[in-house]
Amino acid sequence: MKKILAGLALATIAITGVASAQDSPFALQIGARKGVMDYRQLQLITLGQMAKGEVEYNAEAAQKAADNVVASAMLDQSMLWPQGSDSDSNIESRAMASIWAEGSDIGAKGKAFAEAAMAMQAAAGVDLASLQAAMGPLGETCVACHKDYRAPAN
Amino acid sequence: MKKILAGLALATIAITGVASAQDSPFALQIGARKGVMDYRQLQLITLGQMAKGEVEYNAEAAQKAADNVVASAMLDQSMLWPQGSDSDSNIESRAMASIWAEGSDIGAKGKAFAEAAMAMQAAAGVDLASLQAAMGPLGETCVACHKDYRAPAN
Repeated sequence: MKKILAGLALATIAITGVASAQDSPFALQIGARKGVMDYRQLQLITLGQMAKGEVEYNAEAAQKAADNVVASAMLDQSMLWPQGSDSDSNIESRAMASIWAEGSDIGAKGKAFAEAAMAMQAAAGVDLASLQAAMGPLGETCVACHKDYRAPAN
Repeated sequence: MKKILAGLALATIAITGVASAQDSPFALQIGARKGVMDYRQLQLITLGQMAKGEVEYNAEAAQKAADNVVASAMLDQSMLWPQGSDSDSNIESRAMASIWAEGSDIGAKGKAFAEAAMAMQAAAGVDLASLQAAMGPLGETCVACHKDYRAPAN
């Protein structure tokens, strides 16, 4: 029991200290959301550079980037989008309140992204033409959501 | 071909605009790293609150949080830690340069975290005592890495 309590104390040290230094009560949720977007962007840059011929096509690297996009789409993010964590109430966020409003189609847009990511996963390692063909539809799902639900940068 | 080019243009719009507004050439890598840490912290808070009795034990919620920790440990993060993305060179980062230095045991520490996360995954849904017993070792792997490789907050 003593060992468990000591362990819990250590765990408490490990998991505190970040939120208190930040502004919003949703700092961790918003930070994690933005981090997931940054992660996806890194993968899309890798894929996009090959698609545009800026970097030589490499089937293995393309497949890995596509796998990573899918992994990021599969990650459970249900806890990252609590009501009240929108850009109206949190200066760190660009997630518009309309995400949570009646009539929001954020779920459908998320599903479209996941499906386009899986199409990219099936295509990226085949050849350059397949990667290029999958890039547009994937980019469109990013744009569709950002256009409707991401507030302009400050 | 026209359609592919239009798609690529859209994809380019989707994946640009963030990095340019930030300071470091590694802004995306650092942002993604911090986001992954925030994500883990959210899961550990859920587990920790149950372990400490602040929130009633719920096997399903505990299992989900533990599954999420493991998913975050399994996510390919190899591209998130480029040489030069340390706290000496990047004000946004607290990742110490010693991570990349000779003799660094960051790989072993990451492996220890992943193993403790999997032990939590096996324990969290069983009962409260099992969750509590897995919490200490998991927290210790967080602390071990932060102690050696995370610079103090500014």
